[in-house]
Amino acid sequence: MTVSRRTILTGTLAAGVVAAGPALAAPATQVERWGVFEIAMPGPAQGNPFDDVCVAAVFECDGRHVRVPGFYDGDGTYRIRFSPDAMGQWRWRSESNVASLDGRTGAFRCGLPGKANRGPVRVTRDGFHFAYADGTPYRQIGTTSYSWALQSDAKCAETLATLAAAPFNKMRMLVFPNVPSVATDPFVRTGAGPRDWDAARFDPAYFRRYEDRLRKLGELGIEADVILFHPYDVKRGYSDMRRADDERYVRYVAARFGAFRNVWWSMANEYDDVKSKSDADWDHLFQVLQAADPHDRLRSIHQIKRYYDHRKPWITHASVQNGHAVLDDGRAELHRAMTEKPVIFDEVCYEGDIAKRWGNLSAQGLVERFWWGTIGGTYVGHSETFASDHNADFSWLGQGGTLRGASAPRLAFLRRILDDGPVPGIDPIQTWWGYRLGGREHDYYLRYFGADSPSEWPVVLPGKGAEALRSYRADIIDTWNMTITPAGSFTMAQMNEYDVHDPARPTLALPGRPWIAVRLVRT
Amino acid sequence: MTVSRRTILTGTLAAGVVAAGPALAAPATQVERWGVFEIAMPGPAQGNPFDDVCVAAVFECDGRHVRVPGFYDGDGTYRIRFSPDAMGQWRWRSESNVASLDGRTGAFRCGLPGKANRGPVRVTRDGFHFAYADGTPYRQIGTTSYSWALQSDAKCAETLATLAAAPFNKMRMLVFPNVPSVATDPFVRTGAGPRDWDAARFDPAYFRRYEDRLRKLGELGIEADVILFHPYDVKRGYSDMRRADDERYVRYVAARFGAFRNVWWSMANEYDDVKSKSDADWDHLFQVLQAADPHDRLRSIHQIKRYYDHRKPWITHASVQNGHAVLDDGRAELHRAMTEKPVIFDEVCYEGDIAKRWGNLSAQGLVERFWWGTIGGTYVGHSETFASDHNADFSWLGQGGTLRGASAPRLAFLRRILDDGPVPGIDPIQTWWGYRLGGREHDYYLRYFGADSPSEWPVVLPGKGAEALRSYRADIIDTWNMTITPAGSFTMAQMNEYDVHDPARPTLALPGRPWIAVRLVRT
Repeated sequence: MTVSRRTILTGTLAAGVVAAGPALAAPATQVERWGVFEIAMPGPAQGNPFDDVCVAAVFECDGRHVRVPGFYDGDGTYRIRFSPDAMGQWRWRSESNVASLDGRTGAFRCGLPGKANRGPVRVTRDGFHFAYADGTPYRQIGTTSYSWALQSDAKCAETLATLAAAPFNKMRMLVFPNVPSVATDPFVRTGAGPRDWDAARFDPAYFRRYEDRLRKLGELGIEADVILFHPYDVKRGYSDMRRADDERYVRYVAARFGAFRNVWWSMANEYDDVKSKSDADWDHLFQVLQAADPHDRLRSIHQIKRYYDHRKPWITHASVQNGHAVLDDGRAELHRAMTEKPVIFDEVCYEGDIAKRWGNLSAQGLVERFWWGTIGGTYVGHSETFASDHNADFSWLGQGGTLRGASAPRLAFLRRILDDGPVPGIDPIQTWWGYRLGGREHDYYLRYFGADSPSEWPVVLPGKGAEALRSYRADIIDTWNMTITPAGSFTMAQMNEYDVHDPARPTLALPGRPWIAVRLVRT
Repeated sequence: MTVSRRTILTGTLAAGVVAAGPALAAPATQVERWGVFEIAMPGPAQGNPFDDVCVAAVFECDGRHVRVPGFYDGDGTYRIRFSPDAMGQWRWRSESNVASLDGRTGAFRCGLPGKANRGPVRVTRDGFHFAYADGTPYRQIGTTSYSWALQSDAKCAETLATLAAAPFNKMRMLVFPNVPSVATDPFVRTGAGPRDWDAARFDPAYFRRYEDRLRKLGELGIEADVILFHPYDVKRGYSDMRRADDERYVRYVAARFGAFRNVWWSMANEYDDVKSKSDADWDHLFQVLQAADPHDRLRSIHQIKRYYDHRKPWITHASVQNGHAVLDDGRAELHRAMTEKPVIFDEVCYEGDIAKRWGNLSAQGLVERFWWGTIGGTYVGHSETFASDHNADFSWLGQGGTLRGASAPRLAFLRRILDDGPVPGIDPIQTWWGYRLGGREHDYYLRYFGADSPSEWPVVLPGKGAEALRSYRADIIDTWNMTITPAGSFTMAQMNEYDVHDPARPTLALPGRPWIAVRLVRT
């Protein structure tokens, strides 16, 4: 299962028409569900097409209409990308303020999705987890490599090969570079100075290159958490543009990237360190993004210190930086309780060896954070800051390449455990009473002991009445050595008003090592 | 200081005119700042005055106008209560749909507040603490006695005598009874059945009695957190009224009680257990309350499981039920980070001996919660559930009376420490890095060890550069035995990129007992 997902799945995310550069092909007549249908049309190249030309298409199927904005791809070519979410016959008609792009029509059939195509990831009905559109649970095991997509083709290929063998199903990545990169100019340059660029003119090659990386991630089954702004490019100032420029940029990436089903939007990394933008600016940009994205991809924003108000309606899930919170399932759980959304701790410090305390976690320390986050019903993100000169810029976190740490295999092990776990995911169980259990009541429990090394665990589960009087098989999980050891079964009887236990077996012997978890699965 | 505050301060909260019952007196001509100016006017007693008569007065001082709704107090008497927040000459003019109540005018002078009158409690500018309007910090040490005000005069006197000797500066109290009470009928009864009452007709005597208790709390310097709705009166159904009845009730209590400067509004206790109301209903009632309350008293809402969105603009502070959160300063702090408001853990389980786990905390366990909450920059609430028959209804929590527990003196000790602490309050210090310190950086630190019994503490403070290289005198605080032992001083030098310590004295010896805190105060 895991292996087949890693096979390169040619064509599943490729556009219905591959129309690179100025050569235009006729639109496809057949597209898989959640694939990309693309219209390429010739149009004016003079003036500033990014500002002067509006183009969109209205797609219709069974009476439902979806209006999809297009974008200028340079060299007189305009593209409209649409990912149909319903099978059937779709018709489209273009709209433009330019006659040659207006009123063009066409049709295509949307058929069954390809084998590895499960659709985009959505928030589940319960509000705290994720699933692909076809219903398959999505248990986020993320990583971050901020500027990997902006490196050389060879380096990108190395990163992709690393990812193909790694457990990660989400990659956080910047649009604008934050570390030394091959691709550095999303906008047309107007001079040699760092601020000599024209915010009104995108360089299509920059974005074409970036979307090639998005597609390749998709072929590996990896979601791309595309970070639109960040505070680290103070020289170039890409996050300090005027509002109209921000709007143009947000609309451009929404039109270019939004049809790829593995795209998520992260409005900003450390938004609260972008000094040129206020809360109202961010709110506004979310509204612009929502309006510009008919595909309604997931939306979040990541902070350094000051939490954004994740209850705002345009936020689909909380993206959080907080390493301390995931050292305690209770702290992790509170993020769910306070946001009423799925929670991803996208930054919890990194496995590495740099001097900065945010980049010198042990592998054990990083894996521990994933486990506490899991028990708290949340998700966690990985990255690595190993680099030969201890400069994080050149590490996996900055540029990608290869992994040097020891956490990734343990996260693959965790992912297998989650894949065998309850649907749609692990929920915290009576957190307020300190049981430190995650799972699903009366069905599945994970108890985690972190750095403690207990020699036994009193097996006490919360519950009252018939539904709590179940039998469970136990496994002792060594989360570091990646072993699962069957440990017999427990048949529960009422212990007191609040709890059940097995009177014949009140405790479970444990190995007295750290990083142990216990799994109880109803039999 | 503490003693003088406990003296009964006759007149400081009494209305400018004491006009109990139908006998009307002329309005006062002189009122202290933040006192109560009251207009009493005769008017129609026929029909339903609660619905048929609108009365208000517009107060003017130095060009500022405040419109204050009045209320019907029975027996043909209408009252308008106003608490002026500015000294000077005030003029007023009444408005009504009844001619005899309309267009009446008057004036009074607002002078200096009385000695113990510090004005209403407000949120401080930093957003996380409280202070009286005169600037005096208010460090909340709350208690709860839900139906104390509805007991006999003798029992209420007993409760007030207990409070006069106790450390509490806030009382949570229901308007509608939840346990056996002497006063049970806020509305005029229409029959013998539990639901035989007329939501459109208040019983003024019920509210007159309640406000007598509010005044007496005020005289003791105790804020009254007035809980408007709760889910425990399923028989009477006071929390299941129609929207129009809820609105009438909210407006009535706002007009009657809002001028008392010690009143806070708690929209509901365990709001999420009131099954007849939706989030939209609560939002609406907050808007009604805001509009009905020109005094703009503090507003909150208390949950059992599902957090209300405390970032909503009508919420002045988060009122939280969560005993687990205040066993960890990091969990407590997250409530500030997520709400960006002051946080009061109004329910953290109670010191007591009932069988229910929410009511059998040890005194040590309750005091511990106060301390962790303090380190996390938040505030905590007390109550007791000791009762001869282990029935919480008859305990301090239910009816008031006397305290039997051992926590209250330790909370008085904590309050003295807080009163000697930084202004406006204790803030969490670099919570995300696990220092477990509260205070004010480079100035004042509290480190708390809870149930641990360390024999020493490595005195390491976060900080970099000149501002961190300070000297501190240390005290070892035994939070249970209520002792403060001077422990010499520390002169800080840079230890690493993030921390300072005293190289000549890297650790502080501790007594090896639980419930120890260390205080460092800059010298």
